[in-house]
Amino acid sequence: TKMKLPGQEEFEASSAHENAPAGELDSGLGPGPSPDGPSDTDSREVGVPKDPLLFIQLNELLGWPQALEWRETGRWVLFEEKLEVGAGRWSIPHVPTVALPSLQKLRSLLAEGLVLLDCPAQSLLELVEQVTRAESLSPELRGQLQALLLQKPQHYIQTTGTRPCWGSTHRRKPSYDEEAPLKEQHQNPLRQRLPPGAEAGTVLAGELGFLAQPLGAFVRLRDPVVLGLLTEVPLPSRFFCLLLGPPMLAKGYHEMGRAAAVLLSDPQFQWSVRRANNLHDLLAALDTFLEEVTVLPPGRWDPTARIPPPKCLPCEHKRLLSQLREVRGLAAPHRIQAEDRHRHGPHAPSPELQRTGRLFGGLVQDVRRKASWYPSDFLDALHPQCFSAVLYIYLATITNAITFGGLLGDATNGAQGVLESFLGTAVAGAAFCLMAGQPLTILSSTGPVLVFERLLFSFSRDYSLDYLPFRLWVGIWVATFCLVLVATEASVLVRYFTRFTEEGFCALISLIFIYDAVGKMLNLAHAYPIQRPGSPAYGCLCQYASPGGNESQWTRTRPKDGDDILIMDLGLINASLLPPPECARQGGHPRGPSCHTVPDIAFFSLLLFLTSFLFAMALKHVKTSRFFPSVVRKVLSDFSSVLAILLGCGLDAFLGLATPKLMVPREFKPTLPGRGWLVSPFGANPWWLSVAAALPALLLSILIFMDQQITAVVLNRVEYRLQKGAGFHLDLFCVAMLMLLTSVLGLPWYVSATIISLAHMDSLRRESRACAPGQPPRFLGIREQRLTGLVVFILTGVSIFLAPVLKFIPMPVLYGIFLYMGVAALSSIQFMKRVQLLLMPAKHQPDLLLLRHVPLSRVHLFTAIQLSCLGLLWTIKSTPAAIIFPLMLLGLVGVRKSLEWVFSPQELLWLDELMPEEERSNPEKGLETEHPFSGSDMEDSELMYQPKAPEINISVN
Amino acid sequence: TKMKLPGQEEFEASSAHENAPAGELDSGLGPGPSPDGPSDTDSREVGVPKDPLLFIQLNELLGWPQALEWRETGRWVLFEEKLEVGAGRWSIPHVPTVALPSLQKLRSLLAEGLVLLDCPAQSLLELVEQVTRAESLSPELRGQLQALLLQKPQHYIQTTGTRPCWGSTHRRKPSYDEEAPLKEQHQNPLRQRLPPGAEAGTVLAGELGFLAQPLGAFVRLRDPVVLGLLTEVPLPSRFFCLLLGPPMLAKGYHEMGRAAAVLLSDPQFQWSVRRANNLHDLLAALDTFLEEVTVLPPGRWDPTARIPPPKCLPCEHKRLLSQLREVRGLAAPHRIQAEDRHRHGPHAPSPELQRTGRLFGGLVQDVRRKASWYPSDFLDALHPQCFSAVLYIYLATITNAITFGGLLGDATNGAQGVLESFLGTAVAGAAFCLMAGQPLTILSSTGPVLVFERLLFSFSRDYSLDYLPFRLWVGIWVATFCLVLVATEASVLVRYFTRFTEEGFCALISLIFIYDAVGKMLNLAHAYPIQRPGSPAYGCLCQYASPGGNESQWTRTRPKDGDDILIMDLGLINASLLPPPECARQGGHPRGPSCHTVPDIAFFSLLLFLTSFLFAMALKHVKTSRFFPSVVRKVLSDFSSVLAILLGCGLDAFLGLATPKLMVPREFKPTLPGRGWLVSPFGANPWWLSVAAALPALLLSILIFMDQQITAVVLNRVEYRLQKGAGFHLDLFCVAMLMLLTSVLGLPWYVSATIISLAHMDSLRRESRACAPGQPPRFLGIREQRLTGLVVFILTGVSIFLAPVLKFIPMPVLYGIFLYMGVAALSSIQFMKRVQLLLMPAKHQPDLLLLRHVPLSRVHLFTAIQLSCLGLLWTIKSTPAAIIFPLMLLGLVGVRKSLEWVFSPQELLWLDELMPEEERSNPEKGLETEHPFSGSDMEDSELMYQPKAPEINISVN
Repeated sequence: TKMKLPGQEEFEASSAHENAPAGELDSGLGPGPSPDGPSDTDSREVGVPKDPLLFIQLNELLGWPQALEWRETGRWVLFEEKLEVGAGRWSIPHVPTVALPSLQKLRSLLAEGLVLLDCPAQSLLELVEQVTRAESLSPELRGQLQALLLQKPQHYIQTTGTRPCWGSTHRRKPSYDEEAPLKEQHQNPLRQRLPPGAEAGTVLAGELGFLAQPLGAFVRLRDPVVLGLLTEVPLPSRFFCLLLGPPMLAKGYHEMGRAAAVLLSDPQFQWSVRRANNLHDLLAALDTFLEEVTVLPPGRWDPTARIPPPKCLPCEHKRLLSQLREVRGLAAPHRIQAEDRHRHGPHAPSPELQRTGRLFGGLVQDVRRKASWYPSDFLDALHPQCFSAVLYIYLATITNAITFGGLLGDATNGAQGVLESFLGTAVAGAAFCLMAGQPLTILSSTGPVLVFERLLFSFSRDYSLDYLPFRLWVGIWVATFCLVLVATEASVLVRYFTRFTEEGFCALISLIFIYDAVGKMLNLAHAYPIQRPGSPAYGCLCQYASPGGNESQWTRTRPKDGDDILIMDLGLINASLLPPPECARQGGHPRGPSCHTVPDIAFFSLLLFLTSFLFAMALKHVKTSRFFPSVVRKVLSDFSSVLAILLGCGLDAFLGLATPKLMVPREFKPTLPGRGWLVSPFGANPWWLSVAAALPALLLSILIFMDQQITAVVLNRVEYRLQKGAGFHLDLFCVAMLMLLTSVLGLPWYVSATIISLAHMDSLRRESRACAPGQPPRFLGIREQRLTGLVVFILTGVSIFLAPVLKFIPMPVLYGIFLYMGVAALSSIQFMKRVQLLLMPAKHQPDLLLLRHVPLSRVHLFTAIQLSCLGLLWTIKSTPAAIIFPLMLLGLVGVRKSLEWVFSPQELLWLDELMPEEERSNPEKGLETEHPFSGSDMEDSELMYQPKAPEINISVN
Repeated sequence: TKMKLPGQEEFEASSAHENAPAGELDSGLGPGPSPDGPSDTDSREVGVPKDPLLFIQLNELLGWPQALEWRETGRWVLFEEKLEVGAGRWSIPHVPTVALPSLQKLRSLLAEGLVLLDCPAQSLLELVEQVTRAESLSPELRGQLQALLLQKPQHYIQTTGTRPCWGSTHRRKPSYDEEAPLKEQHQNPLRQRLPPGAEAGTVLAGELGFLAQPLGAFVRLRDPVVLGLLTEVPLPSRFFCLLLGPPMLAKGYHEMGRAAAVLLSDPQFQWSVRRANNLHDLLAALDTFLEEVTVLPPGRWDPTARIPPPKCLPCEHKRLLSQLREVRGLAAPHRIQAEDRHRHGPHAPSPELQRTGRLFGGLVQDVRRKASWYPSDFLDALHPQCFSAVLYIYLATITNAITFGGLLGDATNGAQGVLESFLGTAVAGAAFCLMAGQPLTILSSTGPVLVFERLLFSFSRDYSLDYLPFRLWVGIWVATFCLVLVATEASVLVRYFTRFTEEGFCALISLIFIYDAVGKMLNLAHAYPIQRPGSPAYGCLCQYASPGGNESQWTRTRPKDGDDILIMDLGLINASLLPPPECARQGGHPRGPSCHTVPDIAFFSLLLFLTSFLFAMALKHVKTSRFFPSVVRKVLSDFSSVLAILLGCGLDAFLGLATPKLMVPREFKPTLPGRGWLVSPFGANPWWLSVAAALPALLLSILIFMDQQITAVVLNRVEYRLQKGAGFHLDLFCVAMLMLLTSVLGLPWYVSATIISLAHMDSLRRESRACAPGQPPRFLGIREQRLTGLVVFILTGVSIFLAPVLKFIPMPVLYGIFLYMGVAALSSIQFMKRVQLLLMPAKHQPDLLLLRHVPLSRVHLFTAIQLSCLGLLWTIKSTPAAIIFPLMLLGLVGVRKSLEWVFSPQELLWLDELMPEEERSNPEKGLETEHPFSGSDMEDSELMYQPKAPEINISVN
């Protein structure tokens, strides 16, 4: 052909993130099929101005012979929407399908017909005159045809209200000043969904009895111009295609018109036809299209079935690749794929993770990099979206503070509590937002640290240590160790934390959460025993002092066996059956074996527990339901924990039972009675304990490092397109400093929390507003700034004065939320998907890419190894040596390393990801040997469109 | 072309049920794409012997140039399965897609290549010789090629175990006696999934460096013969296609081979190529295929994506139709469609519903028709499947008997109970199975009758009537009225019961179920009040008689306000705190306000209620999950109620609380104390009540008629392909007689129950065993016989002696099952789907056919009218006039009739179905006017493949 293939010259330099995994996250960072640039859906040429988006509509000529009228029966932007005539609505967008003969008939009609490229017409009238003049038509016929073409078409315009609004009925002879677009056209909601600069293309097709032979015309306007009432949306038209002819069988012109529209909606055909110089170019573009189409056999596919839009559109890059391969004989597609795959691994080594080799070199670099962004970190927050982000994250943060505060109070037997949790969250969070490398991070108590604190507390209780001073020394040591890690740039080691490690970490913590939540509920059943038939349920009397001052007689006759009050013959004076609280108020003493038994509490607590858990789970899933507008669904889903807590509190308040409630101090002072805000450095502990604390501190440092860095890696992934860069070293430094501060003040310890930070980023995501029907909105980036976080934590600080309200929260509700967190975290990891595979017959397994490339037995083996590691960790956790579990978590990295002896690099690439060494030593070989014979690259390249979903790796927040 | 189009001559006479709605039922009567005949998947010619099924495999030549080997990389029966080389498994079956150029290249290769039709080769050796001889090859090349073609291909055969079994490695020179099929081939599980008589086709494709030019050959063997190790399954081969050539770009031969295989797997191409006489015919068949293919545009569809098999395959009938329309210009496809649509309406007037016009004419006809089948009704039961059907239906029946018996005992305050339920079920069920027109029907207490009985009981209590005698007269009158209905052939009126009526009926009853279940739970909370703080929880003492014989002193000082024992100053002698039961055993008297309060019962009952409800719901959904083999899932889902009851009982027994239990008499005698098995005709009632009973009897007759006939219509639908016909009149006659019997004996009343009868039919369905990968098993019919039902009810009768075990069932569990029944029934009707639409934004609504054809506002209007009817019914049900609700149900028919003034026939056709008159008056017009212009029939014809799912219309059983 005469034309250059689009983007051929830029091919080697094509954008790096063109095929980046589009990021389908639980937290709602939805898929974005072609993620670069806001104005065009097809990422073809970087740096070259993009062709405008094309809106195509098909106007059909109906009603022959009695009442001819044009009616819009289909429209295309990315996908096809068909007018459901009976229902008066646009169909759900679907992948357009056409019949091959229609395309072929279209080709021959165009070949014989009129092709006007760069037609100078400035109005519909001029256009119609040009189109009809060139034809060999009799003058009478030409007049008829012109009148017909100028006739106003009927559009179905769904205005924003629910009432459908048909364009007014057709008029035979429109005066030409009526060509100005109508109000309906301007009010068309579709207009808002098309980007500025979009152009229109119109296909007119139909049967016209007075024509002796088919009439085909294809026009490209030199200057796009709004053609009056022709199109549904008042866009400047660029293309105009006319397909008329004598009546023929089987809806020939309808299908031919659809074929023309589908053709025009193809981005590569558009590219070609915008640059075509003559008929030959046009037909060549059509032939190129035909060469690339996918064919479905007639016996196995109903041509009228509608295919829903795929999650990922094939990108132009790949189409070019396959064309080039054919044209030039490009030999090594493997290389490109291999690079692609490596580039998109979750551990793509970012510049922030390059070792400088100098002491504190990484930290200095981080500070330098972030300093230049500092002013913009506040200016960029001036957007209304930030208000809603603050509200959302504030509610999530105090929910976290309440839950973790309550649990910490439980775990440390009141050495810390809700008040410390609020105060600590506010202080640490705000400080972090002001100083950190990644200010989008939300600091929170996290599961691992909570688990460690619980172990530390039981350890210090076992050895009768003064907890808070001991804890202070642990904190001091941890801060020291972390400083060493910062100095030595240890953060670059995060690349050895593969998914195997992350998931082991997450799974263990989730299981601990689930186990603890259920365990605490069972403890409640012990504290409030169930009244079985025959148990001493009613043995409680209220005894008053006798008027003479001495207590009323308790027994007249002594019981035979002194202990058993039940069968005691009682002779009571001055006693009543008042319930214990009432009795005490009246000056009496409750006496009897069951005075402290509260009935109904156990089962009611269980109900509250289950209700809050199930309600939170159900609300979380509302997001993917079909009900309610998406705003409502998003709110319900985002605030699922808050709503579940509120529901639990409401139920509890409604019945008014004496369920165990959250302990909240009445005034602003530490939860532990008798201590000031500063922890004394030694307390009742011997001096050498300050040195011995280094041992648990070492373990905690490992934990903090892993927890902090895994979150940091997740937050700074390529697919979030952060502009201001990460700050791994600076973040760790800040965490170390805050560790010191919170230890001194006796507040909880904080690190970055994955889920809530992801939610923060999600609430700040920028998206393309205009998007074609069937296309999800495109992700443009994140509003990176420090202000939202700062405001959230200032509000949290103010909320300390809300504390008295919190005493109405029943503990079973918090346990339920706790269980929900564990279950949600556990179910989000790929490991659990593989565990589920163990229970599925091969036939019913989902079509995972993993299963296409790794034998099932190997997948099961990998899962079994992970399960055994988890079992081992759990065993250690249950022994007295539980406190060393962070070391064991680190051991996962070693296990993963040794797996290289069991699994091939290809298998590990699919099951996990590659560790750094391998990437350096044999990146090519590994991928080439996977397919020992040619012929698999084509299928394999679908990798590019079905990227491994980025794992969230929730470390329970 | 020289060939006749397949089935052209039989077109007008094509089988009536070819496009019958394939019947996708909740109860598991899955879709059957092409439902006639057991041996072929394509219903083309009725009465003409079918072509055998073709299994096609693609053997690819890999490893050029070092180590040439043939490997099977794809296979086709209906859908494509691709070998996942990396994972060593067959892919999930999917719709094959090919690239258009591959098909075109294949065409030109075949056009230039060798075509041998009716080749007489008897072995692979002969075949190879024939194929290579005809080519213009040098002798050396020919030798090489022959050796290559005789080389053993590698098959991936998944044996029934989990270990994959690769065919042994290739040998260069197989001796020719090794051509006998291998053990692996015979053990191939795929062989069992192919019907007997299936043939094989093999495509060999690949790049061969020493060839100078492409080599194409297509062979049709005259006599199909097993070609040794060539195919994975030792089937006789019919087709053989060879596509070899010098290396070319972009996997040309692989794709060409796939194209050839896809082509061969197309049923119409197969038909043509089996009858082709020469190359020209072959190419014409290919061209016909190309004309029918569906094309997906490259920019909107990733060619490597796999499309899962559609629920319904396009049938040959339709392909023929569209071809004929094109070839002959068949003018009126509307007519055919209209007939199709009418024929498949759920109320297609069956011959059983033709009015004879004679008194008892319908009954006589029914008896005559069924009598001829009577012996076979027992002989046909001799099949192992009937054993499992008996077990399943027996468990379901006693679950029903327990649940409804318990509820009936509740509703009639012990006038009837579980024992009556068992006895009545056994007697009535067995009698019905022996005599009825449709012996597959399972008689049961149904929701509507239960509701009526409850109303009747409260009526008789309100007017202090002797219930059972009153009920006897109601029964006598109902039997009389039903006899009149039988005599007048009233059953033919069921055609006026459209979906509107059925769903109104079902929705009301379901709502009553739900309301009652929740109401009964709340009543429990009243009976076992919750102990709030400060409530008199502990006021209970055990008082003994004093040694002197007089009771111990109760009070020393009189209380100021006599009622309030709580603040009374007690002076007790001979009293203890023993719990009440223990106290009574020791001869004392429990005294105090709380002696009859049992704590914890209310919440525990609520837990049991929720547990059994949620567990039953969850188990019901196990059927559609991916876990466990399908047998396990089916068992769990089928026995969901039984398992939920067992779980509830287990929980209750584990905790041992005094929850309210099912009341079961200790011996075999009526539940009401003091009555014999025969109800006395008058009892304490005045004589005229026997006449007055005619009034409620009239209402009950309406109810029984509606309940019985709606079920009968559902059971006798066309899609179940019953061979022995229905017996509407005979069934109603039987029900009337049993009504008489059960009234005399004081047993519950019975009519046909929809769900359990459908389950019965489902457990007796015959299916094709052999089915291609990706194809659901085909439905062949039902084992119609009387024996399974009879045995079930005999077993139920025997189970009366199990009654003592039943007293361990807690009532809250039964209420939970009750709630589950109501919710399950409610969610199965289309009405609820439309109610849900009210809550969905238009954008997120599912792509229902209904919504494609009826404007949303009209759909909502219809739903709103249904909702108001339901509201009105509910209001009536809540007034003292509740007992007239059957009349109101009948009123729904009138409302539906008047809807014809509001909605057009087209809308009603989609929203409901047409009433008989309309069918007679304007069948054509209605359908023609829906699409005022041509051009919609094509899309509309997808009706044929997406039939309205047959509604189950559960009248709660």
